[in-house]
Amino acid sequence: MIEKYILTRKKTEALCAPLRIEDYIPQPVDFASPPKWHIAHTTWFFEEMILKRFVSDYKPFHAQYSFLFNSYYNTIGERTFRANRGNITRPGVSEVMNYRKHVDAEIQSLLGSNQEDELIKLIEIGINHEQQHQELLLTDLKFTFGHNPVFPVYDKTFKLEEVYNANSNWIHSKEGVYEIGHQGPDFCFDNELGRHKVYLQDFEIANFLVTNADFIDFIEAGGYKNFNYWLDEGWAWVNEQQVDAPLYWHKIDGEWQYYTFAGLKKVDPKAVLTHVSYYEANAYATWKGMRLPTEFEWEVVADSLDWGQRWEWTNSAYLPYPNFKIAAGAVGEYNGKFMISQMVLKGASLGTAVNHSRKTYRNFFHPKYQWQFSGIRLVK
Amino acid sequence: MIEKYILTRKKTEALCAPLRIEDYIPQPVDFASPPKWHIAHTTWFFEEMILKRFVSDYKPFHAQYSFLFNSYYNTIGERTFRANRGNITRPGVSEVMNYRKHVDAEIQSLLGSNQEDELIKLIEIGINHEQQHQELLLTDLKFTFGHNPVFPVYDKTFKLEEVYNANSNWIHSKEGVYEIGHQGPDFCFDNELGRHKVYLQDFEIANFLVTNADFIDFIEAGGYKNFNYWLDEGWAWVNEQQVDAPLYWHKIDGEWQYYTFAGLKKVDPKAVLTHVSYYEANAYATWKGMRLPTEFEWEVVADSLDWGQRWEWTNSAYLPYPNFKIAAGAVGEYNGKFMISQMVLKGASLGTAVNHSRKTYRNFFHPKYQWQFSGIRLVK
Amino acid sequence: MIEKYILTRKKTEALCAPLRIEDYIPQPVDFASPPKWHIAHTTWFFEEMILKRFVSDYKPFHAQYSFLFNSYYNTIGERTFRANRGNITRPGVSEVMNYRKHVDAEIQSLLGSNQEDELIKLIEIGINHEQQHQELLLTDLKFTFGHNPVFPVYDKTFKLEEVYNANSNWIHSKEGVYEIGHQGPDFCFDNELGRHKVYLQDFEIANFLVTNADFIDFIEAGGYKNFNYWLDEGWAWVNEQQVDAPLYWHKIDGEWQYYTFAGLKKVDPKAVLTHVSYYEANAYATWKGMRLPTEFEWEVVADSLDWGQRWEWTNSAYLPYPNFKIAAGAVGEYNGKFMISQMVLKGASLGTAVNHSRKTYRNFFHPKYQWQFSGIRLVK
Amino acid sequence: MIEKYILTRKKTEALCAPLRIEDYIPQPVDFASPPKWHIAHTTWFFEEMILKRFVSDYKPFHAQYSFLFNSYYNTIGERTFRANRGNITRPGVSEVMNYRKHVDAEIQSLLGSNQEDELIKLIEIGINHEQQHQELLLTDLKFTFGHNPVFPVYDKTFKLEEVYNANSNWIHSKEGVYEIGHQGPDFCFDNELGRHKVYLQDFEIANFLVTNADFIDFIEAGGYKNFNYWLDEGWAWVNEQQVDAPLYWHKIDGEWQYYTFAGLKKVDPKAVLTHVSYYEANAYATWKGMRLPTEFEWEVVADSLDWGQRWEWTNSAYLPYPNFKIAAGAVGEYNGKFMISQMVLKGASLGTAVNHSRKTYRNFFHPKYQWQFSGIRLVK
Repeated sequence: MIEKYILTRKKTEALCAPLRIEDYIPQPVDFASPPKWHIAHTTWFFEEMILKRFVSDYKPFHAQYSFLFNSYYNTIGERTFRANRGNITRPGVSEVMNYRKHVDAEIQSLLGSNQEDELIKLIEIGINHEQQHQELLLTDLKFTFGHNPVFPVYDKTFKLEEVYNANSNWIHSKEGVYEIGHQGPDFCFDNELGRHKVYLQDFEIANFLVTNADFIDFIEAGGYKNFNYWLDEGWAWVNEQQVDAPLYWHKIDGEWQYYTFAGLKKVDPKAVLTHVSYYEANAYATWKGMRLPTEFEWEVVADSLDWGQRWEWTNSAYLPYPNFKIAAGAVGEYNGKFMISQMVLKGASLGTAVNHSRKTYRNFFHPKYQWQFSGIRLVK
Repeated sequence: MIEKYILTRKKTEALCAPLRIEDYIPQPVDFASPPKWHIAHTTWFFEEMILKRFVSDYKPFHAQYSFLFNSYYNTIGERTFRANRGNITRPGVSEVMNYRKHVDAEIQSLLGSNQEDELIKLIEIGINHEQQHQELLLTDLKFTFGHNPVFPVYDKTFKLEEVYNANSNWIHSKEGVYEIGHQGPDFCFDNELGRHKVYLQDFEIANFLVTNADFIDFIEAGGYKNFNYWLDEGWAWVNEQQVDAPLYWHKIDGEWQYYTFAGLKKVDPKAVLTHVSYYEANAYATWKGMRLPTEFEWEVVADSLDWGQRWEWTNSAYLPYPNFKIAAGAVGEYNGKFMISQMVLKGASLGTAVNHSRKTYRNFFHPKYQWQFSGIRLVK
Repeated sequence: MIEKYILTRKKTEALCAPLRIEDYIPQPVDFASPPKWHIAHTTWFFEEMILKRFVSDYKPFHAQYSFLFNSYYNTIGERTFRANRGNITRPGVSEVMNYRKHVDAEIQSLLGSNQEDELIKLIEIGINHEQQHQELLLTDLKFTFGHNPVFPVYDKTFKLEEVYNANSNWIHSKEGVYEIGHQGPDFCFDNELGRHKVYLQDFEIANFLVTNADFIDFIEAGGYKNFNYWLDEGWAWVNEQQVDAPLYWHKIDGEWQYYTFAGLKKVDPKAVLTHVSYYEANAYATWKGMRLPTEFEWEVVADSLDWGQRWEWTNSAYLPYPNFKIAAGAVGEYNGKFMISQMVLKGASLGTAVNHSRKTYRNFFHPKYQWQFSGIRLVK
Repeated sequence: MIEKYILTRKKTEALCAPLRIEDYIPQPVDFASPPKWHIAHTTWFFEEMILKRFVSDYKPFHAQYSFLFNSYYNTIGERTFRANRGNITRPGVSEVMNYRKHVDAEIQSLLGSNQEDELIKLIEIGINHEQQHQELLLTDLKFTFGHNPVFPVYDKTFKLEEVYNANSNWIHSKEGVYEIGHQGPDFCFDNELGRHKVYLQDFEIANFLVTNADFIDFIEAGGYKNFNYWLDEGWAWVNEQQVDAPLYWHKIDGEWQYYTFAGLKKVDPKAVLTHVSYYEANAYATWKGMRLPTEFEWEVVADSLDWGQRWEWTNSAYLPYPNFKIAAGAVGEYNGKFMISQMVLKGASLGTAVNHSRKTYRNFFHPKYQWQFSGIRLVK
């Protein structure tokens, strides 16, 4: 567990290696957070949930960090107004890095002398929590860089954003009763628990994701201009936000280009599409005369599917499984309180930690968001 | 069918009998509509969807009504901006009543000479559409009256708002495969079709609804002040809207009163609660250590349940059934396009037409709305 | 004074003669009010400010009217939230008319037995207050009708909106000290008092107003598309509100038309322009290489000017004259509290009562508003 | 002129000496800008307005800086959306500092070989422009620091914010004609030109500013809770923004404290008040039964007044002087386009460059802003 802890913490820091101090600061929109906040908040989790509880007479690294780097955890004092994270310049990057070092040392020392189940379980939650924030750190940073007119390069050799389908077949699944939800001793979040049966109809699911070329067909067929393909709320979103392409796409001199971590480049038609909202995913499927899979359909064929380095929008709302139980205390605020008005995404993306990916994982976002590495898989 | 048509049309007009001309005009909030608009729009449906198609050389009653009284039907020309309905004073009430008479005569004449299936089916949709608007007419009017400081009386003998539980038992349902969705030749909306199997776990469902006394307990226990009971989005709603009671409740001289169609009166503790949002329903259930039923659970025990003259919030998002198909053309815009970010309600309320009520019916609203006659049934 | 009172009251009712009951209700935007509110509020003024004070044991006509028909008068109880006036359907039009009759009878009876100065002064304020609301009643009604896609006709013989310049000369005024402000025994508002000297430079002022043809030249020269002519705040207004013409103008089949009380008709190029904001007035003047007059310049040449049935935007902010004193009590809230962020308009419009017009009158509105009968006079 | 240029540029850099790189980035509200933007934008002015014009074949330092560091100058290409300045992390602080060095060297080289009037005049405008931004840099930085819960110290020896009245007398000014506006060869902005006469009444003006103790009296007398003292727009501001004290004031354990550049400290009752809006200044004056001076009154007694290191709100709207002329081209956008909806402030503050202060100077802000070093002087 110590090793896993150290690897995770180092991974977060490695993601920040190409950053300059300036890049750690901005919060470009209220739903994204500054890198400095991600690296402090993931540290705060270990201090607040573990060190304060398991280390006797633990003295907090700094009196105000508990307040500053809290997220939604209403249980623990008043929290910084979420939209204000980009204005907190002090503590600076080096102080936050010292905070990391301090907490890392304390956690390692604690694990050296204490292996009780409850502690190990919380460490594992903390590791998984940090892995989630690694992905958000990347997507939030891409939002900041992608809206800078100079289109900064994060890493000019970065190639992970462009992936390709390896297959072109459809997979058939038969009607019947299936089991859903996590089982076994491995880690999972509380929202995956409560393994239960569902009844599914026959369906055919694509063993490939929609590509940029596919989506350009939709655009060129007037997809963004025809309300027939859109949910009412999606059509309002298209018109109010004046959306006419996936996020980060720009039509320059008659040619589609997109911002990537390696800079601005021509859209690769063969690469798998990303940065679309649920509204766009649903409209695309409607235009094709197909639909998105439910989270249950996805899960039961997951072992046969080629995952495409995208979070795949499903047609399932993010709601509790039967017998879902909220854990007591602040850790329990983690998942249950978001179970409204969001859609489930399955799979994993280029930003997802390798061991963080499993078929029962339930990612979730509001249907309007494009800034995750989201993609589209069809069912017919 | 003619008789059913006439009865429905007369029912709408009867609901308007206590109104003065002034009352037909206001649109108090963007999600409610003026009575004049409801009576015109339900008429528009028959003219636009039926007369223009089945009566050769049909001459529209008025060139601009197709535009003025359209609702979401993007297929048929530009629509009046929804939030503006309360500013359209002309055509006046008498002109709109003439429009009704004209269309009624034309429909009756048409039905006298044509009984083709497609026509009958559309008439039936029109009747059901009008029945839905009868309920909205009532709830929207209550919103206007209920926000007038003089609290106008609609009908001082009106007693339907206060209903009482007849039972206090819990009903047990066993784990297994169940069938969901409409079957048989009777009318239903497209969103109820595609009868299919679901797998349900064991559950116990209340054969009674939460009462005003129950909910006052929640209020007095600090329910509106403790984030632990609330979904994150619900907690934001409580704080931004400064909600501290169901809609139309006022604490006057230390006593809860509510606005009803019969005027302002003391809250009856034994009566069944109404005018709560999904957020409040969910928070109440959480506070009780229980939960809301899913739409499937509700439907499979519906024949055993005592329905309580309330639309009961379920814990199911309003999404398509497997094999849901959108009808071609404007009629197809009816239901499918709203399948996002809304929750399903089951049952029927005092405002629901008698034959409009059936166990497969899927009503749906955004979780923030209190203005429908909504109520709470618990599952444990 | 009784006669003047009666004439004023009858004039208000005459303005409402072409209205149907429906037209009395809507408040199309927060800065406009429903006709019913205007006729009730002007009556409220006499009841609240006069009858309650001068009639011993006066019994209010209705307990809640003091609250319902208050405007900004914070001194007298809580006021109805201003944006909500259009939702108050009860009391109805006939009850409000009865309220008028009741108050009229009481005022006449009071004036028959009491002629004390303080009373006469308040009656005169009430008359002038009602005359101001006569104009607002017209402009607010035009806003409601002018945004109805059926463009209702208020009076098909209505001709006052189109007026023409009688002169084309410029008037020269010489540098020197001038006196400003009301003098003499006639009625004026508190903001006109405190007659004082100002020093003015030489200027030349047009003895005519900008016409529709003049303004079409501005539009065709790209006036709405060139930021150079606009104040920064005005340029933001043009872009956010997507303004490209005066209010009520529509380009239909390549031709400018405008809504008038007589219905939609072709723009008359020779008629004097109206329904422009201060931003537009200022931009037009800048485009012409000229400027707007100050309120002082306007006042000192007022006796020589041909007034053009328009409220003329001046380049003066609405601020207190030296020695301005706020009257004690609720009447004192009348003018002084609005002395910020508004510009002065001089003159009189078709909606202004004849005896309401004088050269010292200071009308005032926020620079963004187009809905008054505003016009442009230039200075060079 | 070279020396003045160098001193000004060094002063800006000296103000940034206590900053860490993180502090250069945030834009806490849309009306404030990041330090990095201020130091880049003032440099941009010299490059765009001077080097590009006077240096033949001048090669811009960076192709995109003209776009990135533009402010309101619509003449020069599309500008960065103003509210987005805090998200532009690249170019970084060191690149922007290199930009400064490059432009400084070019300007010095240019001035070594060219002394033409037009150039010198533009250099002087550029210096004054930079001095204005020095003050904004400080006030914007204070806004960022002052909203950080850890209340960062900019300079713990910083003492300039607390100043004291040296006098307590009132100065009398006699009725008559006075001259207003700049004269002489020294630099001034275009809005100070057009020296002209005004006629002023008798008045008495305080030779001291309102102190913190004075303002605490207002607060304790319920000043923020009584609409009678407030302009209508100010009263709305108090209620919507929930204002109950000057900016940066916090009541902690029953005691007023305020954030200063030296950190959080107790409010010094004898120090001169700062960080109030025009609404608060006007309300305070009304409560005292006095008023604010006009900009003309202030200017004619300026030589006798003790200036109190505050920008003093006047009761004059920021409007053009007679014969005001807008300079051709982008430089002309500097002042004239803001002449609406703002109030004039006279004097100088701790943030004002020494030679930047003169009695004809017309500073201006919207009446709602508190973040400048604004104060109150009374007239009776």
